[in-house]
Amino acid sequence: MKKIILLGATGSIGVQTADIIREHPEEFSLVGLSAGKNMEVTRKLIQEFRPEIVCVQLAEDAKQLQQEFTGIQFVHGSQGLIDASTYDADVLVNAVIGSVGLEPTLEAIKLGRTIAIANKETLVTAGHLVMQSAKQYGADILPVDSEHSALFQALNGEKLEQASRLILTASGGSFRDKTREELADVTVEDALNHPNWSMGSKITIDSATMLNKGLEVIEAHVLFDFAYDDIDVLLHRESIIHSLVEFQDTSVMAQLGTPDMRVPIQYALSYPDRLPRPSAKRLDLAEIAQLNFRAMDYERFRALKLAFDAGREGGTMTTVLNAANEQAVAMFLNRQIGFLQIEEFIERAMLAHKTIASPDLETILAADSETRKTVENMLK
Amino acid sequence: MKKIILLGATGSIGVQTADIIREHPEEFSLVGLSAGKNMEVTRKLIQEFRPEIVCVQLAEDAKQLQQEFTGIQFVHGSQGLIDASTYDADVLVNAVIGSVGLEPTLEAIKLGRTIAIANKETLVTAGHLVMQSAKQYGADILPVDSEHSALFQALNGEKLEQASRLILTASGGSFRDKTREELADVTVEDALNHPNWSMGSKITIDSATMLNKGLEVIEAHVLFDFAYDDIDVLLHRESIIHSLVEFQDTSVMAQLGTPDMRVPIQYALSYPDRLPRPSAKRLDLAEIAQLNFRAMDYERFRALKLAFDAGREGGTMTTVLNAANEQAVAMFLNRQIGFLQIEEFIERAMLAHKTIASPDLETILAADSETRKTVENMLK
Repeated sequence: MKKIILLGATGSIGVQTADIIREHPEEFSLVGLSAGKNMEVTRKLIQEFRPEIVCVQLAEDAKQLQQEFTGIQFVHGSQGLIDASTYDADVLVNAVIGSVGLEPTLEAIKLGRTIAIANKETLVTAGHLVMQSAKQYGADILPVDSEHSALFQALNGEKLEQASRLILTASGGSFRDKTREELADVTVEDALNHPNWSMGSKITIDSATMLNKGLEVIEAHVLFDFAYDDIDVLLHRESIIHSLVEFQDTSVMAQLGTPDMRVPIQYALSYPDRLPRPSAKRLDLAEIAQLNFRAMDYERFRALKLAFDAGREGGTMTTVLNAANEQAVAMFLNRQIGFLQIEEFIERAMLAHKTIASPDLETILAADSETRKTVENMLK
Repeated sequence: MKKIILLGATGSIGVQTADIIREHPEEFSLVGLSAGKNMEVTRKLIQEFRPEIVCVQLAEDAKQLQQEFTGIQFVHGSQGLIDASTYDADVLVNAVIGSVGLEPTLEAIKLGRTIAIANKETLVTAGHLVMQSAKQYGADILPVDSEHSALFQALNGEKLEQASRLILTASGGSFRDKTREELADVTVEDALNHPNWSMGSKITIDSATMLNKGLEVIEAHVLFDFAYDDIDVLLHRESIIHSLVEFQDTSVMAQLGTPDMRVPIQYALSYPDRLPRPSAKRLDLAEIAQLNFRAMDYERFRALKLAFDAGREGGTMTTVLNAANEQAVAMFLNRQIGFLQIEEFIERAMLAHKTIASPDLETILAADSETRKTVENMLK
């Protein structure tokens, strides 16, 4: 029985992680969770799983829940998130959105916990700290993202130094068939309509700009210690091949499946084993009939190019990329800016920033908040 | 440095194995080889690799070579093949054609040698003896066939009992787009024109009848201990995905590459490592653009159905399938029978045979020669 702490329990990944825990009551136990402000879903999760510790965003929500549920420890805010993350458990699933997941993850790593990481911002902004710390404390970092899980699975049983190239597939997002000219006037609703994956709104927008793939490229660099020149992105509209690893003998290993985030989530929880998923749809390639591939166009998908640039620059620049994107996407979702302004604001933030190499946590957090302000001010 | 014995050195797989040994002089040394009657190629191999032992088919050829080359041991015939197979080495590559490879393989297994097996007839006719013996003597059996190498690679680092399905891909061979009616009058030349792979003539005909895929299904059953119900065949005309393994979590792992037999050959020699292949063409999925898949039609590819039948029946029936096919293909290549008669003769041989369960080597060899006679007599 593995004891699991789930950060971001009411989000898209969180809810699907709960599905997996529910499917395998003999294997997994949800001993802790964190949620934001959605008390309706939080209450349901508490009633069903009876965790030992629960973190919510606001003090008044924690107080209210404490009155409703006895025998459960309620905490709140940033410190609460750290308390929940460091509560006794085997696996910490970090499925929060944005860079708020960073500190709790670093604290759990110090306890040698296995980290199932769906919060890519943690790796993008502070990958060097996370991986160094994981090495130092012997903590496993297991990817939850479907692409990185695919890479991780393709590398299973292999020697990392004999792999020559990581190939991340990209569906192309909701606007894959639009030209840049056509992108100028797209609406929030258009952008939220992803063809293959059912995900949260922030990541769906990131998928449309392809900045999401850019964050994944940086994440892959961090997780697998690959040079950016050896990381490729391949357009694959069906999202059936979730990613591929080329080895030095020219063999390519790939992980495939019906698009369903619960498969990589379960793999991160069950690793190194694979558990049955009787309710899931099995892949039927004869039914799918055709898989398509196209080279990535970095002019068309400019945000992806910016991510490669930020990754190669390194230091605080990936934090700037991520913070500028989070701010700009929020502004787009608030209908304050147009779709193409997202990448424009990211680029301007990057140009305005002077990179600091090997930043510590404090420097990263400072670069993050400074960038958000810079981007906010771009509207003025 | 791995010492290698290569049986069937002048055949298609043999020549490509020599290519790999040539490419990696620091890693591999060819200490022994066997050839048939092609003395021209045999001489060149001896001059280049200077092996310690050489087996040829005929006594007079062995005698002649002995006069030309000093310091090399020349042997011949069936006993010679066993002498060469059991000569001091690390890996025995069995790349002979037909059931002649069986006894030498069993003898090498008794010495605990790693067997790189390209001779599928050995596994098809006596798989139970080979695998039992390999287990008893601690010998590794490594597949060389691209499909089984793909399955083996996809299972790397995984638990066999957590795999749920083996999916062998099939290009469809030279006649994949022909109807059964159109097959009646095809010529030997038509059949030898395979769209993707450059192989010997026997296997190219087997590829056109799909009996080759049938032998591969039986081989997969033997190598990986999978029930026939859990082995699928998928038509995939491009031969880029070389085979796939589905796991119980619905994840599917696949091995891909440009069609080049030297990749799986090298993998069998270098396993568990992967060595560089700088001269090889890297896979470019964007250039390939599209991969196609179609369900297998067992009415159209009747020989494949017969192979599943023989496999499910077990015992001596797989020997009958293989021997009947070898005999019928020889008759087709001699222009004695038409293309569709190959499967007709196989089916008649299977109907005429009364299966003996768990046969020993003697029983297998008896069933083999009896079947060849039966099929020969079908012409009278």
